[in-house]
Amino acid sequence: MGVDERRQQLIGVALELFSRRSPDEVSIDEIASAAGISRPLVYHYFPGKLSLYEAALTRASEDLADRFTEPREGPLGARLLRVMHRFFDFVDSHGPGFSALMRGGPAVGSSRANALIDSVRQAAYVQILSHLRVQDPPARLELVIRSWISLVEATALIWLEGRRIPRRELEVQLVHDFAALAAVSAAHDAEMAELLRAALRDEPGHGPFGDLVARLIALA
Amino acid sequence: MGVDERRQQLIGVALELFSRRSPDEVSIDEIASAAGISRPLVYHYFPGKLSLYEAALTRASEDLADRFTEPREGPLGARLLRVMHRFFDFVDSHGPGFSALMRGGPAVGSSRANALIDSVRQAAYVQILSHLRVQDPPARLELVIRSWISLVEATALIWLEGRRIPRRELEVQLVHDFAALAAVSAAHDAEMAELLRAALRDEPGHGPFGDLVARLIALA
Repeated sequence: MGVDERRQQLIGVALELFSRRSPDEVSIDEIASAAGISRPLVYHYFPGKLSLYEAALTRASEDLADRFTEPREGPLGARLLRVMHRFFDFVDSHGPGFSALMRGGPAVGSSRANALIDSVRQAAYVQILSHLRVQDPPARLELVIRSWISLVEATALIWLEGRRIPRRELEVQLVHDFAALAAVSAAHDAEMAELLRAALRDEPGHGPFGDLVARLIALA
Repeated sequence: MGVDERRQQLIGVALELFSRRSPDEVSIDEIASAAGISRPLVYHYFPGKLSLYEAALTRASEDLADRFTEPREGPLGARLLRVMHRFFDFVDSHGPGFSALMRGGPAVGSSRANALIDSVRQAAYVQILSHLRVQDPPARLELVIRSWISLVEATALIWLEGRRIPRRELEVQLVHDFAALAAVSAAHDAEMAELLRAALRDEPGHGPFGDLVARLIALA
């Protein structure tokens, strides 16, 4: 195995272990054993657990940021729903590691970890803006998108605590939450109302947004 | 000045400094000077900056948790709005310290800080449940309240970055967001729909919730 290939293999093994348990609980010995190499050989590729953890986090954050990439085709609600589905796939498979990281993570390396988390949030924000076809967002639109991204994170963390609500239901609900938060903002601001109307112009009655309106009317 | 009185004075001085600048930037010398005592005397009361920072955080978190306490009288929307107003008063006066803390804070003492933040979130959650008169919340109600608390935090942090939206507007909008998130959940679940109806039964047309409905109808 070449140097880079071995490094990538080790990152993959470490990510798998860090995903299933809190990073504090994973030892270099365990990583070496899972990779089928000796402990000293791990140190040949990475100076210590922190650098391996950071490499694993970097790969995980690139993976997560990629999941927000969605072709600009078809109705907006359906696009957002596909993104939520891929996001929950990630949360589902990296549960304990995701929780440990988002809840402040291990004290070691927290500033690098925070920077990676912020880069994922920024990637998600830029993607959503581009789907709304907005170049220069007003402060209220920025607030709606960024605070919704926080809501998505919080929802995923609460879901992971006991998985008491079906995942698919949360995926739809979060898309509906986006529409609801945008509608509240639009109810306060004419510019937001115009943006919302433009975003929903091509939305079909049977899409997630049409579904929400029908459900709310049935509720009233 | 007695020992406890002096400790309380130092905590107050430290909190004031930690609120205005990131805790990493505040020195013991500065705290001593602001309190009008010598540096060695500060160490007589607190073993180091970390313990003083933790004492200041503890006082701030008790103050913040208290702001969620609201008499169970009058319409729910107006109660929530008063809570949001007191919350933004806190955010406004502790801006830089609040940001530093919520964004991962100084690496030192982060586990104690995280525990304090969690205790404030829990106090807010318990308060809101009691206002809804719910003893044993279903998973979906817990999710709505706790994810809304995250939304409030995120909104405050984004607001602090440039204060580009009037505070009063955000206070109302967050109360409306709570209603909107509860409505989305109710649109998916009969038990939530029943809880929402019960919560809104005594809501007047001119309160924040009635105002939201009127605004949304005007928008459509």
